[in-house]
Amino acid sequence: MTTPQMQSSDITKKPDTKTRLRLWLRLLKLSSSIEGELRKRLRDDHGTTLPRFDVMAALYRYPDGLRMSDLSDHLRVSNGNVTGILDRLTEEELALRVAIPGDRRAHLACLTPKGRDVFSDLAKFHENWINDLLHRLSMEEAETVSALLEQALASQERA
Amino acid sequence: MTTPQMQSSDITKKPDTKTRLRLWLRLLKLSSSIEGELRKRLRDDHGTTLPRFDVMAALYRYPDGLRMSDLSDHLRVSNGNVTGILDRLTEEELALRVAIPGDRRAHLACLTPKGRDVFSDLAKFHENWINDLLHRLSMEEAETVSALLEQALASQERA
Repeated sequence: MTTPQMQSSDITKKPDTKTRLRLWLRLLKLSSSIEGELRKRLRDDHGTTLPRFDVMAALYRYPDGLRMSDLSDHLRVSNGNVTGILDRLTEEELALRVAIPGDRRAHLACLTPKGRDVFSDLAKFHENWINDLLHRLSMEEAETVSALLEQALASQERA
Repeated sequence: MTTPQMQSSDITKKPDTKTRLRLWLRLLKLSSSIEGELRKRLRDDHGTTLPRFDVMAALYRYPDGLRMSDLSDHLRVSNGNVTGILDRLTEEELALRVAIPGDRRAHLACLTPKGRDVFSDLAKFHENWINDLLHRLSMEEAETVSALLEQALASQERA
């Protein structure tokens, strides 16, 4: 025996679905808001772009070089764009392309020591900006969200 | 009087900064992973795109019409792209452009009743996908993250 109220709420409400949808919309809103701010600061304060920062960040993590084909997997930018960015970085002597012995068509990309220095400075600004943009979360709160996002990610990675 | 260990950790560690940076990287990873999955499902199961879905979602929220100039503020896509998407939606009789009386150059865009039906169906799939992609978070956990992201957003919106 259910009351009319219960039946009606069974039919009209799916709280779990709405809760996760709301979470997703907030996540998107926060990430685009922060991303917009990063783009602005990179452009205004450092004359650079977020895609270029992302390419340098990926290369920085692989000091021994990263295959061009793997590079785009680490990024949010499209493949064509990556090649253009890498061309510019190479011209500016911030990155290098190295042939892979035994594979004529494949290349490794890596940052030059100068490129590593430039990125390392930029990364410090980036870290401080993020710290500033997320200052409303205490360290404990940031850790809570971090752990829960990691938990949510586990299912993505298996999928 | 501090011990050498304490001095060393003071100099080398800035736990807050790293915690918030780690949170940001996870947030980005989760949002691009989910976004990639949404793109795939919209394309494979419904022959449509995420930018088109976003344009329809924005128009759906404003049944009385949204200024073209305001539309792009609600979206992650570039302006040129929005115009192209709206042209297609108009051709397919899913959206309409209406002149604003007294302002020759401005137009309102809105979904047609058919467009509202199409989006409403798509939105149900989208809600279920999100629910599925975030299933590793219980409702309580999703609510915790949601509330903390809202708290983090408060500072973005004021900035």
